Formats: sequence, C-alpha cells, structure tokens
Amino acid sequence: MDALIDAIRHVVGETGLVRGEAVAARATSYWDPAPCRARAIVRPASTAEVAEVLRLCHAAGQAVVTQGGVTGCSQGADARAGELVLSTERLNAIEAIDPVGGTATVQAGVTLQALQEAARAHDRLFALDLGARGSCTVGGNVATNAGGINVLRYGMMRAQVLGLEAVLADGTIVSSMNHMLKNNSGFDLKQLMIGTEGTLGVVTRVVVRLHPLPASRNTALVALRDFDAVTELLTRMQRDMAGTLSAFEVMWNLYYRAATAPGGHRAPMADAHPFYVLMEAEGADTTADAARFEAVLAAVLDAGLIDDAVLPQSEAERRALWEIRENFEAMLVGRETFLYDVSLPIGEMAGYADEVLAAMDATWPQGRAIIFGHVADGNLHLFIQPQQAGATHAQSDALVYAPLTRRQGAVSAEHGIGQEKLGWLDRCRSAAEIALMRTLKQALDPKGILNPGRVIPPP
Amino acid sequence: MDALIDAIRHVVGETGLVRGEAVAARATSYWDPAPCRARAIVRPASTAEVAEVLRLCHAAGQAVVTQGGVTGCSQGADARAGELVLSTERLNAIEAIDPVGGTATVQAGVTLQALQEAARAHDRLFALDLGARGSCTVGGNVATNAGGINVLRYGMMRAQVLGLEAVLADGTIVSSMNHMLKNNSGFDLKQLMIGTEGTLGVVTRVVVRLHPLPASRNTALVALRDFDAVTELLTRMQRDMAGTLSAFEVMWNLYYRAATAPGGHRAPMADAHPFYVLMEAEGADTTADAARFEAVLAAVLDAGLIDDAVLPQSEAERRALWEIRENFEAMLVGRETFLYDVSLPIGEMAGYADEVLAAMDATWPQGRAIIFGHVADGNLHLFIQPQQAGATHAQSDALVYAPLTRRQGAVSAEHGIGQEKLGWLDRCRSAAEIALMRTLKQALDPKGILNPGRVIPPP
Repeated sequence: MDALIDAIRHVVGETGLVRGEAVAARATSYWDPAPCRARAIVRPASTAEVAEVLRLCHAAGQAVVTQGGVTGCSQGADARAGELVLSTERLNAIEAIDPVGGTATVQAGVTLQALQEAARAHDRLFALDLGARGSCTVGGNVATNAGGINVLRYGMMRAQVLGLEAVLADGTIVSSMNHMLKNNSGFDLKQLMIGTEGTLGVVTRVVVRLHPLPASRNTALVALRDFDAVTELLTRMQRDMAGTLSAFEVMWNLYYRAATAPGGHRAPMADAHPFYVLMEAEGADTTADAARFEAVLAAVLDAGLIDDAVLPQSEAERRALWEIRENFEAMLVGRETFLYDVSLPIGEMAGYADEVLAAMDATWPQGRAIIFGHVADGNLHLFIQPQQAGATHAQSDALVYAPLTRRQGAVSAEHGIGQEKLGWLDRCRSAAEIALMRTLKQALDPKGILNPGRVIPPP
Repeated sequence: MDALIDAIRHVVGETGLVRGEAVAARATSYWDPAPCRARAIVRPASTAEVAEVLRLCHAAGQAVVTQGGVTGCSQGADARAGELVLSTERLNAIEAIDPVGGTATVQAGVTLQALQEAARAHDRLFALDLGARGSCTVGGNVATNAGGINVLRYGMMRAQVLGLEAVLADGTIVSSMNHMLKNNSGFDLKQLMIGTEGTLGVVTRVVVRLHPLPASRNTALVALRDFDAVTELLTRMQRDMAGTLSAFEVMWNLYYRAATAPGGHRAPMADAHPFYVLMEAEGADTTADAARFEAVLAAVLDAGLIDDAVLPQSEAERRALWEIRENFEAMLVGRETFLYDVSLPIGEMAGYADEVLAAMDATWPQGRAIIFGHVADGNLHLFIQPQQAGATHAQSDALVYAPLTRRQGAVSAEHGIGQEKLGWLDRCRSAAEIALMRTLKQALDPKGILNPGRVIPPP
C-alpha cells in the first residue's frame, strides 16, 4: 500500500503529505486529545489535486475522511486507524467578494471567521455564526449544514450556499458555482453535498450569499416564569420586531446558575428565575430600532410576560451577556459531560425537558442535566453530567433520546450524526428513509470510500 | 395493456379514473388548449393509492406524468400520447395548521391560495406568492421549487418546506414529515424532491413553514433613469428597510408602456422613464413603518436616485399598482409570444438586456422584447414578440439563451426545464453536472417511468 502513498505524494508533493509521528502529533479532534490514528494526512492545494487524490484512493479502495476544522461534535471527522485524512487546510483562499451581487467565493478550508471578516471589510454580513467560528471551516459548515445563533433570521448554512464545487468519490469534479438566488436549471446538485457530512463528495469551493451589514443591534436578557411565557414572548417578538429578530436563545434555570456560579460569569440578574432568554434584533436605524425594541420590551413587561430584563449599555456589556450563553467551558471542567443536540417542535420542548429532568433525578440523582438552546429553531442542547462512577454514554443516550420519538423529535438538529449517533438514527428516521440514504450512497460512492461508517447505519 | 388500467381501477375506483373522451375534454395545460393526449388520468385519494398505482405502473413500465394545477411554463406536466397522468386533484386536504409551531400540513393537491387563506385564518403568513396562486398546487410548487414575488424576503419554495412525503417510482413511500426548522439527522431527503420536477418521485403531503402575518405593508412605484440607479436603489432599500423589504419588481420601459397602453392599466406616472420599480415592505408597526418607508423614499428622491414616485393611498390603489406588474394578459393578446425566465447575476442584467434588445432589433425589427422581473433574486422574465410570419421558437430561444453562458446565467430561474428547455440545459450546466443528474435518476427511477423526457437531456 506504500505505492498509494507514493502516488499521492507525486500529486500533492511533500508539503501536501503528513506521515508517521507528525500524524500522531495531531489530536483526534477539538474534543478528543488522543493522537490522530490516520494512516496519513493529505493536504491538497487545489480542486484538481483533490480529484487526483480521490481517483487514486478510489482505485485502491482506500477509506478517506475529510477534515476541516475538526470541531464537529459527532465524531464525523475523527479518523480511525487505516483511514486516510484529506485535510482542506491548504484550500484557504478567499477568491472573491462581490458586495453588489451579495456573494463571496471561497475555498472550503477558509475559516468561518475569516469569511465573516472578509465580508465585513466590504460592509456586508456573512450571516452564519457559531461558537467555533475561529476554527471551523466553510467546507465543514457545508458538510454539516451548520446552524448556530442566527438561524432564526438567516437560516442554516443551506440557506447561505448559492453554489459549490465538489469532487465525487471517483475523482469526478462537479462544479456548480452558481451566483444567483434563483436557479432552477436542472437538479440543484449542491443539496447532495449540504448536510451529508462528506459521505457523498468532498466540497472544495463554495459561493455564499452575503447580506447587508446591520447598522443597529439591540440586545436583552430577560427572565420568565415558565415555558409558556417563553413561547408567547417568541411569538410576540417575531411579530413585533418583524424581520429583524436575529437571536432568541433560551437557558433553563440550571444553565444560568451553572454559568454564573462563583468563579464563572457575573450574574446580571437574580438566578432564581425558571427561564432566561437572550434575544437580539438587527436593524438599519440606530435610533428608531432601539426605541422600538425598548417599547416592545416595555409592553411585554407591562403584560407580565417577563419578570425581569437587562439591556446592555455598551458593547462590552453586550459581549458579557453573550459570554454567559456562548462560553460554557467552566461548567464542564472536572465533570464527565455528555453533550447533546436534539431537535423537536417548540410545543413539545417543555414536556420533553421535564421528562429528561425527571429521568435524571431517577437515574443519577447527584448529577445534573443542563438544558439550553435555539428554541425558535426547534433545537435544544443538553449537557448530561451524571456525577457517578460507572455512568455510561449509552445510559445517557437512552435517557436523552428515548423520549424523542413520541414527540416527533430527532437526534440531531445541527451537529449531525457522524459516528456517535449512528446507532440512534433509526429512532427518528424510518426504514424507508434510511434505505433511500443507502441508495444515494451506493449511487455516488459505490465503493464506500468517503467517510465510511458515518451517518448511514450498516444494513 | 387494459389489464393495467383495470388493475388501477381496482385501486382508485371509477371516481379515481378518467378515460376516453373525458381525457380529451381537458386541456393540455393552462397555456395549451389542445386536448390532453394522456392514455388515462388517475386521481388517487391517498398516499397509499398513489403508492399502489406507481407499483403497478413500475411493473408494467408505464410512463407516468404527475399533474398539479398544470400552470407550469415549461411543459413539464404536459402529457404526451401514451403517458398516464397522475393527478393530485383529490389530494386536497389541509390536514393541520399549527400557529404556535408555525407549520401547516397539507396534501399535495391543495392550491397555493387555499394554503395562504388557511394560514391567514390563523393569523399567519404562508410566504410563497405568485400569479397562478388560484390554480397552482403546493405539490407543483415543491416539484418546481416555485419562486414568485416574495423570494427576496422569504426565499423560494425550498425555504418554506420543512418536511414532505413522497412515493418513489417503484411505489415505496418515503415519509419525512419533519416539523422543525433544524434537523440534521441523516440526509435531508426532501431536497431530492424539491425542484426536480417530479422526475424522482411523487410528492403527496407537505409540511411548510408559516411566518407571522405582517401588520403593515408599504408600497411604492418609482421611476429611474438607468439600471445603475436600480441596483443602487436595491442596495439602499435592503440596507435601510432591514429585513422587511419583501418585493422589488423591475420593469423595463417597454413593459410599462405595454401594460399601460390604451385599453390596459391606468398609468400612475409618465411612461417615458427607462425603468420602473414596484417595491413593498412588510412590517409590524403601521405608523412607524410608514414613516420609515417614506423617509427612505424621500432620501433617495433627494439624492437624485429616483425620478418619480407614487405611493398608493388605499388598498385599491395598491392593488392597481400590482395589477400593472401581475396582470399582463392584455399585452399578449393577438401577438405570438415566447415566454422566458432566465437567471443571471444582477451585475450582468443591464448588459444582457441591451444585448437581447439589440439582437431583437437586428432579427425582428418590427417585434418587441418586453423585459421585467425579480431583479433582487437574479431573475428576469422576457416576452419575445417577433411580429413576423415564420418566426420560430428556436430562433427566439437562440436570441435569448445565447448571451447567457458568458454572463454566468442560466436558462431557468423559477420555471424549470420541463420539456421545453431540455435542449438548452447544457448551456448552463456542465457535462459532469448532467451526468450526475442521470446518476440520480438511474438510482431512484431505473425504469425511467416518472416524467420521462423532462429535465434531463437524453445521453
């Protein structure tokens, strides 16, 4: 099999190849510090090189795992022994920004933050945003159909992608670098690559949509007595802040208390409220938008819908509120934590959370279940911390996933299936759906070399 | 082959089957009054019946054409002799409206207007809107990924669909009735059915997203001196009406003159301006939104960006402005007209239109090319009226499509390929892309019974 590596070196050069101890010197992923176990790491510098590498791997039946920023939460890009890593780290060019047409053209290895900053330099917004922005890549955002904190207003990554270029398992380059919002000229092939976690092709270049940079931003942290009030607040904010509400992040009491515990973030209000919501609207008129935001807040306060509210008086204060929601590292330190990302209808969330909390009390009474998420998108995250020796991931999975099916929920809202949730996919997708996924995989990657053992459960 | 029809009658009953002269009594489509030439028209009343009918047709190798409202502009649903029509006309139930969750669940044969009205009755907006709303169906909207007049703010049909149920060519029911905005649990299979014009499956039920019903609506018709001014106005309106601009419809001078010619619509302003734009914003605050809309308009008037503006003072006046844009029947009467729907980057539109107008002058100097469209979406429509005996559709196609390739344009923005544009698809999609479309078709419909001869050119 060294013949394959030799052939690949001829394509990508020494710079394009990482082997031996240099592979093990890399971590498995952001979440797993264990040494990378890949056979080698290939770093192509162009779509043509990606194509040639895949052509060789296809001929040899070599399993290939594509890696972007390796920040994914479902072990989709974690390489297993014997697999070859195809890293997009050298595909990092921002090729073009078109402020009038409202598009950016970038290579897949560009980080989300680099794209955001390039757009901002042209007075435009790239609307996808999430905590891993500094490390995650545009290609990874495409492969996982990334979500994050602005989905409510701007949609997921799928809504940002206008065109893309991908390489199929056999090395065929399929370039669909569309720049238009509307194009119904034949099948919209980019949909095959978005959210399929690299199992149907390797994305090398992307055309994304840019939005006007908002001139105003209004933020508030509010406290509420129950989940019905959260739902009613969401309905009113969506109606009254028409088209400008960009974030509506809900934290259950336990999240807020853990985040503002001694040594953590400063608590901007009392920690006894059942629910906290961090919300933000982005508009065009700094004076009028603030007045409207405050008027709407005053109205919901008068109506008894919210019990307390904090409006930041500076960008530093605003950042501090967002830190409570985004920077949760401290609450994970020293505690075994299982991280979840479930999807369910808003009307089912309160009952679901109660069910998980009750199961937690029954199973691991000394542990805690921390719940928060993007409620408007039908997306909750959970940190399950059993605080008990011998507690297993499988037990935790059962606790979190079992109540989902009956509530029309699903095991991933934005993290994907990867390797981690493979055994749970059939809880939320039917046998006919999984069979159709296999049909697609078989049609596009008959030898199964791309990200094998991810997403699609074995028959 | 009567055995097949007999077997189908056993599934759908006499009510579910139209045969003989009753078939020919139907028109081929909204655009073509010629008698329908289908072998029979089958009208299943449930997903299970659709599945059983397709299972029989698959076994018999019978070509099936799915019909919704038959208002499509690319002959995708026009039945050819020997084909069997599968009509969704009896799949017309609105199953559920969930105003809190913001979803509607409907069968595929429900008309767009019926869905809009059902949502409005619950104080919610179904955001897709287009001229054929009274006849076109939700299933057809899915199959063609319909666009229309609100794409700028709400996206195309793809952005409205949360979940769907479809029947594959062999009769397999694939139900993916997701209700969440975010769900990355395995492949997003609905994308296979959206915009593929019925070639990969028959959509039977759909879950769509609903939005808050806007409280305010502000509309203006403005006149501009050149296309640069149109582009600059769009940029400013998108920035200054943040998130609320819902329509931005551009009409070239010739469109406006034809629409307001004697016997047509009343002209609300002089007809000598090179460009007219009808724009609309939808918000939450009737007083403040009107003030902002008028202030932004005053600013662009002061800046010399627009040369005239009319703001309707009543709903009747607003409707009259929209009639100019939507009701163009009068300008088609008595003139042979070829209708187009092209997609191209905004920066290319002015040059493209000039090129078409020049080619028109050279080819059919007595004819006219009427241009209008959804500029913000990268979408122009053209009416080519040669006014010359012997002028052919093929000549007209060449005139309209030839300049597109160089400008990164495409032959369909929202109408699809159908049968009509089959020969032009390779102008805007590469051989690799078309090969991948064939791979998908082969994988999902190996016998090629669903809408054969549509969308994908023969090898």
